[in-house]
This record gives sequence, structure tokens and C-alpha cells, in this order.
Amino acid sequence: MNHPRLATTPAELSKAITELLEATGKDRPALGLVPTMGALHQGHAALAQAARADNDVVVASIFVNPLQFDDPDDLARYPRTLEADLALLGEAGVDIVFAPAEETMYPGGAPLVRVSSGDLGNRFEGAFRPGHFDGVLTVVAKLLHCAQPAVPAEYRAYFGQKDAQQVALIRRMVADLNFPVQVFPVPIVRAEDGLAESSRNVFLGPEQRKDALVLSQALFQLQERAAAGRPLDLPAAVELITSRGGVELDYFEVVDPLTLAALPAGPSDTLSGPALALVAARVGSIRLIDNAELSG
Amino acid sequence: MNHPRLATTPAELSKAITELLEATGKDRPALGLVPTMGALHQGHAALAQAARADNDVVVASIFVNPLQFDDPDDLARYPRTLEADLALLGEAGVDIVFAPAEETMYPGGAPLVRVSSGDLGNRFEGAFRPGHFDGVLTVVAKLLHCAQPAVPAEYRAYFGQKDAQQVALIRRMVADLNFPVQVFPVPIVRAEDGLAESSRNVFLGPEQRKDALVLSQALFQLQERAAAGRPLDLPAAVELITSRGGVELDYFEVVDPLTLAALPAGPSDTLSGPALALVAARVGSIRLIDNAELSG
Repeated sequence: MNHPRLATTPAELSKAITELLEATGKDRPALGLVPTMGALHQGHAALAQAARADNDVVVASIFVNPLQFDDPDDLARYPRTLEADLALLGEAGVDIVFAPAEETMYPGGAPLVRVSSGDLGNRFEGAFRPGHFDGVLTVVAKLLHCAQPAVPAEYRAYFGQKDAQQVALIRRMVADLNFPVQVFPVPIVRAEDGLAESSRNVFLGPEQRKDALVLSQALFQLQERAAAGRPLDLPAAVELITSRGGVELDYFEVVDPLTLAALPAGPSDTLSGPALALVAARVGSIRLIDNAELSG
Repeated sequence: MNHPRLATTPAELSKAITELLEATGKDRPALGLVPTMGALHQGHAALAQAARADNDVVVASIFVNPLQFDDPDDLARYPRTLEADLALLGEAGVDIVFAPAEETMYPGGAPLVRVSSGDLGNRFEGAFRPGHFDGVLTVVAKLLHCAQPAVPAEYRAYFGQKDAQQVALIRRMVADLNFPVQVFPVPIVRAEDGLAESSRNVFLGPEQRKDALVLSQALFQLQERAAAGRPLDLPAAVELITSRGGVELDYFEVVDPLTLAALPAGPSDTLSGPALALVAARVGSIRLIDNAELSG
């Protein structure tokens, strides 16, 4: 009988997987993953044996995923039998057991970004256990990423800061679902007149383009006040836009750059940390967005 | 100026990435991905240049993602300028352009399983463009998987067929979000009395366990009828369960194994292809599920 290596963090898991895959000496070894919630029985043993038969390295995970329990009582009484589970997995020849704490899988609490199971997840079990399959798919997505053999390269993805909310959400998705990639935001590029570059700018007529400049002007106003340590006075910047004929404001707010939670930005509020000003408006039928980082 | 290699399928993309990463001769080269919707401008050029400066191999994608347009008119008039886009990306030193057709990214139409942006995706732009960020995150998840450097291993994940709906959903997630893993279902393991193994079976008292056997008995009845080419007569199998005191049926249906769409299974319906019978019931406060593949 085998004594599986125990990993409790994604980094430990990844290191153990890399070492065992390399130790096979094969060009293209095979890794099998068996996700479980513990309380293992002969059905799980069959999973581990199937994985053992097909693969060079076998990983099993044990994690009672709170996200897939719609009933807190069911979660509380779900059997937890770690010692017996490790013995069963060792017996089945599992090489590595990934048994993370809840705080390791969901640092900071429940994930903001999740996998949605759609209509297929609302029927049968889903009809009796609302949200169950979204919770299952979310944790399986995380586990598939955590146990994935490491790619032999740095992997980086680049997104424009112009779509600030998109960047914030992609960062959250990568963190919440453990995507093995690094996200790099790239600063907004502006035309000489200050207008943020956008694929939709080609639709602006000459007068509309002049009107549209009020967005970046209002953002620059906030940036200057922030840099000077003066109150932001967001209402004055809003007034600059709303007083411009031809521009209809959708929103204009000062927010936390990571969570996008609103920050106080009145005529007497000065910044206490990094902030982001987000603005959206329509010029004719063209919808434009822009934003600026504010720092004192 | 560079002439980027054009890839239109995930397989072509993966091949091109592997070749160019290998051609660097480095142990750990770096790959940069720049996802775009085309209609490129100087903001995109800055993204490509940032990726070029940091990485050995640079991939840009061009895909106008229908999933993130809440307004069909906006989608229809979104600028499409492929020739100019390729020139701009070549100028910026991009090595590979991934420009898939809609049918390649969404074979069979809109994906069932998606990434959900949650509360953070319902504010600001999300408030004006319902569903926009779910569409963005879904396509970005797909692109992150498609452009990921290939892992130097086979990667397989094993799931018990006992949770048949879970298996169907995980298959859909892997397909819909392009996870680089192969999914293997493993047959149900049953105790000698026929009860499907489950972590919740430990909660059953001796009498409840006897009651619970009616689930597998009803499934075996359907399997036998299917194997003999006789009508399934699901109502008779339902009656077997409901006539048993102590067992409360939640559902019992015959469905397509992949889509879980209901199939006709009345007293005169014979099978015309593979099918799955799904059953769930409560024995006291214990909820049990079971299923069986039916084939003629």
C-alpha cells in the first residue's frame, strides 16, 4: 500500500504533480484527477482504481464544497472521515491527495465569479437543490485548474484598462476559478484631443466628437484635484458633462479599483487611497465609456 | 513587419503555439495573449506592443463575440476590418492570430454552461447591458484555455456515473469552456443488495435500507425491458416505487444521456437509442439518487 503525499495548497499540489510527472522520465506522462468530497466508499475506490489503471500519476482531492450545499444542515452533517479516506486512497494507489481548507479554496469567502450550469442545471437534482450544480461546476473548474500539469511556459494575458470593469472582472475570474494565467492591464491610449481610443469612435460625427471630449475633460479634472490633494467634488465634474448639450450621462462614479465599490467623492471628500473614476455617456446613439485612475 | 500566422481552429492555434514556443529553444519561454474583437485601433496596438515587449511568442485573437452583445443592432453594425487588423497586428510584431468562426467557438449554438459575473457584473456597464459581462467572461475563459501552452502530459478527470447529471454538466462545461482535460465517467458501484454506493447511505437505518432497494429494483426492471426490446412502461416502474411505504419519489424519468431531454417511456414506447433512467427519492430524511443506462 501506497502512502499518498498530502498537499493542502494549490502551490504544494502543483509542486508535487510536477515532481512525480518528471520522475516518470516519460515525454508525455498521464495524470489522472479524482475529485471527491471525502466520506469515501467503494464507488470512490472504483474511481481511483480506474485512474490508477490509466495514468502514471494519480491525484485525488478531498474537499467538502460548501458552495454546492443548498441546505446548511446537510452540509453540517455531511460525513467527514479524513483518516479512513486517506487509507482507502492509499490502498487504491493514489499518489497525491489534495485536501485544502475552505479558506484556501475560497479566500475572502464565496467567489464573486462562478460557473453557471444554465437550464441543464435547473432540472432533476437542480430543481430540488437550487444552486447545487453552479456550486459543483465552480469547484470542479477550480480543481481542474489546480491539478492541471504545469505548462512549460509563462502564460500572460493582456487587457485594455479602457474597459476597467472588464479588467476587474477578468482578474476576479482568474482568481476565483484559479485560471493558470497572469493578467496584465495596459493603460488607456488617447487621441491627441484626449478622447479614449475605441472601436466605436468611427461612428462619431465631427460635432459629436467635440461633445465626447467632455468625458475625458471631466476625468482629467478629477485627476488634477486628486493629485493636488484637494476634494474630488464629483458633482462638479458631473455638472461639466450634463451641462454639455448632446451628451447624456449614464453614470459617473469614483470607486475602489479592485471591488468597484463606490467611494465618497463629494465637495469635501479627499482621497484616502487609490481610486478609479468611471464614466459612461451617450453621444447621439453612440455609447462611450472612459475612466481614469486617481491618486493623491 | 511580421506576417502573423493565421489559425482558425483551437487545434491549429495549439499547434502553432507549440511550434513557436519550441522554436525559442528556451526551457521556459513566455507566451502573451491579446484577446480582441477586431476593429483594431491604437489602444489595441498598445496591447500588442506590451505583449511583444514581455514575451517570446505573442498571440492575438480576433472574435466578435455575439454572447456579449445585448443589442442585436450593436452586434450587426460592429465594425469588421480583418485585413486592416492583420496589418496592425503584424506591425506590432504579433506572431499568431486566432480568428475563429462563430460556429467554431460555439458549435451547436450558444453554450449551456457559462461563466457568471455575479453582482460585480450587474453594476455600471452591466446595469446598461444585461448579460454583457457573462458573455465577456465566458469567451475569455474559452480563449484562455484555447491559447494556453499545451501541458506536457495527458490530463484526465474521473467522475462517478452515479451523479449522472453532474457528469453531463461537467462534460458540457469542459466542451463549452474549452477546458484542456478529458472527462472519464466511471460506472456505478452497487452493494450486493443492489443499492448504489453513496456517502449518505450511512444514515440509513436497517428498515430504511430495505426500503431504499426499491430504487435499484425499479431501474433494473427498466433495464431488463429495454434489453428485451419491450416497451419501457415507466409508469409501472414508478408504481413499484410509490407503492412502497417509507419512500417518497422526487422524480423518475427516462432521458437522453447527453442532453437529459425527456424521452417517451410509456407502456407502448420502445427505445430507439441509448437512454438513461434517472430516479431520486427520499427515505425518511435521506435523499437518494440512482440511475441506469438503458439499451436495446
